[in-house]
Amino acid sequence: MAFQLPEFTLPNFEEEKYQKAPDITLGTVERDGVAPDDFYLTSHMPTFYKHNGEWLFPEHNSLNCVAVLEEEEIKIKEIREIKRGEEVVLSRTGDLEHGILVYRDGFDESIYSTPGKAVETSFSEDYEYLFKLMEHERDSDDGYIVWVLGPSVVFDYDTRNALNQLAENGYIDCLLGGNAMCTHDLEGGFLQTALGQNIYTQENVPMGHYNHLDLLNEVRTIGSIKDFIAAGNVKDGIIKTLSSMDIPFVLSGSIRDDGPLPEVIGDTDVALTETKKALDKATLIICIATMLHSLSAARMASSYRVRKDGKISPVYMYSVDVTENVVNKVGAARELMAFVPMVTNVQDFVVNCQKALITPAQKEFAEELAMPEEEFIKVENIDELEGEI
Amino acid sequence: MAFQLPEFTLPNFEEEKYQKAPDITLGTVERDGVAPDDFYLTSHMPTFYKHNGEWLFPEHNSLNCVAVLEEEEIKIKEIREIKRGEEVVLSRTGDLEHGILVYRDGFDESIYSTPGKAVETSFSEDYEYLFKLMEHERDSDDGYIVWVLGPSVVFDYDTRNALNQLAENGYIDCLLGGNAMCTHDLEGGFLQTALGQNIYTQENVPMGHYNHLDLLNEVRTIGSIKDFIAAGNVKDGIIKTLSSMDIPFVLSGSIRDDGPLPEVIGDTDVALTETKKALDKATLIICIATMLHSLSAARMASSYRVRKDGKISPVYMYSVDVTENVVNKVGAARELMAFVPMVTNVQDFVVNCQKALITPAQKEFAEELAMPEEEFIKVENIDELEGEI
Amino acid sequence: MAFQLPEFTLPNFEEEKYQKAPDITLGTVERDGVAPDDFYLTSHMPTFYKHNGEWLFPEHNSLNCVAVLEEEEIKIKEIREIKRGEEVVLSRTGDLEHGILVYRDGFDESIYSTPGKAVETSFSEDYEYLFKLMEHERDSDDGYIVWVLGPSVVFDYDTRNALNQLAENGYIDCLLGGNAMCTHDLEGGFLQTALGQNIYTQENVPMGHYNHLDLLNEVRTIGSIKDFIAAGNVKDGIIKTLSSMDIPFVLSGSIRDDGPLPEVIGDTDVALTETKKALDKATLIICIATMLHSLSAARMASSYRVRKDGKISPVYMYSVDVTENVVNKVGAARELMAFVPMVTNVQDFVVNCQKALITPAQKEFAEELAMPEEEFIKVENIDELEGEI
Amino acid sequence: MAFQLPEFTLPNFEEEKYQKAPDITLGTVERDGVAPDDFYLTSHMPTFYKHNGEWLFPEHNSLNCVAVLEEEEIKIKEIREIKRGEEVVLSRTGDLEHGILVYRDGFDESIYSTPGKAVETSFSEDYEYLFKLMEHERDSDDGYIVWVLGPSVVFDYDTRNALNQLAENGYIDCLLGGNAMCTHDLEGGFLQTALGQNIYTQENVPMGHYNHLDLLNEVRTIGSIKDFIAAGNVKDGIIKTLSSMDIPFVLSGSIRDDGPLPEVIGDTDVALTETKKALDKATLIICIATMLHSLSAARMASSYRVRKDGKISPVYMYSVDVTENVVNKVGAARELMAFVPMVTNVQDFVVNCQKALITPAQKEFAEELAMPEEEFIKVENIDELEGEI
Repeated sequence: MAFQLPEFTLPNFEEEKYQKAPDITLGTVERDGVAPDDFYLTSHMPTFYKHNGEWLFPEHNSLNCVAVLEEEEIKIKEIREIKRGEEVVLSRTGDLEHGILVYRDGFDESIYSTPGKAVETSFSEDYEYLFKLMEHERDSDDGYIVWVLGPSVVFDYDTRNALNQLAENGYIDCLLGGNAMCTHDLEGGFLQTALGQNIYTQENVPMGHYNHLDLLNEVRTIGSIKDFIAAGNVKDGIIKTLSSMDIPFVLSGSIRDDGPLPEVIGDTDVALTETKKALDKATLIICIATMLHSLSAARMASSYRVRKDGKISPVYMYSVDVTENVVNKVGAARELMAFVPMVTNVQDFVVNCQKALITPAQKEFAEELAMPEEEFIKVENIDELEGEI
Repeated sequence: MAFQLPEFTLPNFEEEKYQKAPDITLGTVERDGVAPDDFYLTSHMPTFYKHNGEWLFPEHNSLNCVAVLEEEEIKIKEIREIKRGEEVVLSRTGDLEHGILVYRDGFDESIYSTPGKAVETSFSEDYEYLFKLMEHERDSDDGYIVWVLGPSVVFDYDTRNALNQLAENGYIDCLLGGNAMCTHDLEGGFLQTALGQNIYTQENVPMGHYNHLDLLNEVRTIGSIKDFIAAGNVKDGIIKTLSSMDIPFVLSGSIRDDGPLPEVIGDTDVALTETKKALDKATLIICIATMLHSLSAARMASSYRVRKDGKISPVYMYSVDVTENVVNKVGAARELMAFVPMVTNVQDFVVNCQKALITPAQKEFAEELAMPEEEFIKVENIDELEGEI
Repeated sequence: MAFQLPEFTLPNFEEEKYQKAPDITLGTVERDGVAPDDFYLTSHMPTFYKHNGEWLFPEHNSLNCVAVLEEEEIKIKEIREIKRGEEVVLSRTGDLEHGILVYRDGFDESIYSTPGKAVETSFSEDYEYLFKLMEHERDSDDGYIVWVLGPSVVFDYDTRNALNQLAENGYIDCLLGGNAMCTHDLEGGFLQTALGQNIYTQENVPMGHYNHLDLLNEVRTIGSIKDFIAAGNVKDGIIKTLSSMDIPFVLSGSIRDDGPLPEVIGDTDVALTETKKALDKATLIICIATMLHSLSAARMASSYRVRKDGKISPVYMYSVDVTENVVNKVGAARELMAFVPMVTNVQDFVVNCQKALITPAQKEFAEELAMPEEEFIKVENIDELEGEI
Repeated sequence: MAFQLPEFTLPNFEEEKYQKAPDITLGTVERDGVAPDDFYLTSHMPTFYKHNGEWLFPEHNSLNCVAVLEEEEIKIKEIREIKRGEEVVLSRTGDLEHGILVYRDGFDESIYSTPGKAVETSFSEDYEYLFKLMEHERDSDDGYIVWVLGPSVVFDYDTRNALNQLAENGYIDCLLGGNAMCTHDLEGGFLQTALGQNIYTQENVPMGHYNHLDLLNEVRTIGSIKDFIAAGNVKDGIIKTLSSMDIPFVLSGSIRDDGPLPEVIGDTDVALTETKKALDKATLIICIATMLHSLSAARMASSYRVRKDGKISPVYMYSVDVTENVVNKVGAARELMAFVPMVTNVQDFVVNCQKALITPAQKEFAEELAMPEEEFIKVENIDELEGEI
């Protein structure tokens, strides 16, 4: 049977409790970036707002934001973004008595993962599900797979290759990360090292500790990553691949940054806004080996989206890290909804994805490999038919 | 015997190899923020530069910077800060052949900690040393103790008290951190919760998840932390104590931030510059429970300082975290020089410091506690003698 | 107000559901060490068994055992211990329909700790509670505090001292552990090293790697730890202190053991039986820095005890380890009942206990230290008044 | 080029320092299980002993043992095993002055892994090397691959399959572990659960917590794992596969064990002896997800072996665990010689091995998958030839 996303069952708004509920109350913003007293604080959860007797449903939701009524629609905004005069939903309790319905039961309860499940658990089904989900989102006309990568992901030879193939096969629609991730990836493509170590052999190359800063200096000289790649300086790597495929990446700055690269957004407000724009499109989010950027994504991203066909679908977040604590924190921020924790080495994770998510032609061959070996060898031996193979 | 900082032995510049070494070579910056080819990349290590036959020694050093000759002195600058026309030291090998001497042997070899030492090790001596060092730096006229704190430090009742007492007793000269740390601390002083949990009992208070954002909203309404405190809103907490004692704190923004608080520096370049200014004064740095800010400090801070009395002293960095991986990364960034890793719960660490670093009057009493109990009780009972105590 | 243990409220056996419940069904053991079909599997939870219309309550319970009716009482036995002819309670569902009542609500719900609570949490109240609990159990005439120690606990100078003082002050009634813990402790007392490192300075002593095996060889020559200590070979350490105070310790063997020491129990069946005998007396269990022995204790120990005064009290288990995963596993085995996780460095934990659990005379002085300092100094100076102190 | 094991270069015994070295000194054991004073303590390292002017070389070495001269050969024995009258090599310094040569330089220095290398590192080359090594050892006539498995390895559906295929393809020659690992594996084959959770879906099955003990009870009733399998009770699993292929497994008991299974060795002395017998044959050791058994193996196993062809080859140990601390401890015990740390989820590791270590026929097909896709598709399109494929 074909893979299907979990279905969302709308509340039965004919029920008396919904009918009886009043409209939302609104308060006016008096000062830019400051919410009115008793503002209602949003979460990622699917939430309905009653206005003029109708239940409004915003296209996506976000943690610790406010709900603004704008042209008869609910928009979810960061407090820092609201402007004087805007109308903000009020309520402390966030319940039907104030015209608000946080609807946790729209999806089947299996949408919630088990607390504490992460280390020494069975991952077979989680992988299986992820692979189907990735195929589904790649093939959907509004599927949008966002990868959030920490610097250690781009260090490894196999992982670099795997990320490239995943991008080429259509499984990456946007990349979020920081200066270090991008710098290491470009250093790999420019000088075949990461922080001065040969990417494949891990041997330190002579004067290799310069490579990192030399790369930064070169890109800063040319003025942009784009022009640096265009000048033929970069042999391979995920940034080069994304650039050549016109797939966007958002690089947010932090005080740890060397350089930084010209495209890195140093103003955290702007970085947050750009990151959120990307996450608002997401239908699947894969966070790997970064606490900072994973938690940022976990805080900002909606747990659902209204798809082009009008259906409400969950936005799954996979959190992949070798440190259990990181994964647990991300899960807590998502309230475990549409959340899958995977405590593993990130290289293994990325390479597993690549191996599983092959093209249809590759897949046909791979299926033969799964045949019982006797049969498989027999087929192989019908030499007359097969000649060249 | 009184506590003494490790002494730095200068190289014997009379030796032939130093005499024979040429002057440094310089290159001119042609474009702001871009280093000339073959620039020399600095580390935290004590480093001498030969110029006009003299060995220059900058007041502090920093990782991944360039050395600029300015008015016959060497200044260490971030590449992003250098300006067109400045003269930058050139060399790839960074050795005597280019007039550069990275001098790792100025301090005794015990200044280097053992690789891999962190978990399940003996800490008694490390604590003992830290306490003496803190007393020494508090009492030095140019001692400057910088604390780098993650948000989890201010969650706990005992730890809040301990930090306060440490500040009051003179053991905190500057605080570095982010928006979350400061927000949690102020929430504790404003509403007696941290992220909505009662700080002492850890019980969730009703609607407590609003407290965090309410605090942010209130401070943003008033316009500054300073005015918010002045208005009497904050009962206690380290930020209040530091404010009342005019001890500086630098808050660097990141894309994870709610709010943020008005004093948080959202531009990462500015945040880096302000952080570095603070670190340049440091004679001791204590990093607790934050990977982002600890690594940032580890990257920027010098491993030594030239003190007022002309002596060169090490700038110790203590890295305290319950996650071994964080501590190991910080240690690697410091090349294990003047570095002490402590893998422990941060509350235990801070409370330990507070208990050990008491005032002289408190100490006198505490010493009695250390007496063998029989003697101790006997003394206590001989009331006539009590005068002397 | 004086500290009180949580009270246990008995079920109201007058209620119809209890009255209507049938007696338990029994099956006969046909073969030593093998349970009859449909045997009922026990947990640590308080459990009542109806027999002849009466509700029997065993003195303690244990995970994965069977309930045996013996002389009109319920005894909880390991399956390996049951003998042909014994009568074992049958039931798969373990409910009233089979005369069994697993009573999770006897204690207030605060007896259960929050899942996932361990890292970066507030510990002030947990410590406070532990210290009161330890004092209470020390002063109870049937209090019995069992410490379960891993080898890393005895490595550190301060921790060795702290353990000694805790034992001398009456806070240790029994010690459980393995060969390595005991060997390291004795090596410390014999040669002032642990695995060849000086306990205080952590410096490797010359030929120090022999110390460990030399100690083992010496004790094996003499034939017992007891005689080895009696011969004056051991200067200090917890094993010496326990021996001199006639406090029992049980050392269970494992395949990792060097030596082993003569008192180490190499037969795992015997070791399990001896460990369980100790745990059956426990009113408080503190597990530190050992996964093997902590999980073993978590599996075997009851979560409650019937005290001398007839009251049912919880048997708290504290699990202390710097690795979150260890603590979480122990908590899972206890179903989070009467369980407190503490993720911290074990040295800090032990030293904290020692500092807090001082004698009454020490405490009187310590209280003065807690006074506001002005007052404190004033009191100190009014010599005439000192008599009262 | 064909894979080759690192070569061992013998010392040049013609050199004067070797010629001048005296014969070893021997001491006589006076009491069973107790070494004579000044006994020489062994390590895993290749070590030569001069006797009657000849340099003797034992077939394998082991940590913390003694060297016994027996019929003009050196045998390495645990102290507990030595008997009255045996002749033990004496020396504290273990150097040429006592006729002993610990030869760390026989292999190229690349045999030592880098300290601290484990987390966030590049694994591509390590995997590549492991796969070649496994193939080499499988195909050598004295290759012997020992797997040391913790219980979490057998929980997962994919991992169970992967282990089976690895065994069937000849990559497992011996399995070491404990009672839990074996019990979980058999529970999976008997009831399709592990600790009551469905192995694939991870859902708890009704009354599933009985499955674990029911399995133990059933096997104990029948009397042996072997007979339990023979009776057709076990559908699949690694233990069944090994049994059917007559591949040995050694199960060592511990005080954590439920049951235990009849084949579990409860006497730790016997368990150690049996484990060591297996390890003495090993040419490659893969330790996964168990601290107890990994450290036990790390302590006992030689770091080299004398192969049938007379060559000395390293015995590589791979330590695979999601907890860095475990891997670091194992590495320390091996002195990082012929040691590869891999911090990852154990399922990913095992499945990676299985996917890489396919049969020659499978491999031929797999190689096509590696072709550039255009070419690959072209081949596939020659439909006339291929028909059925």
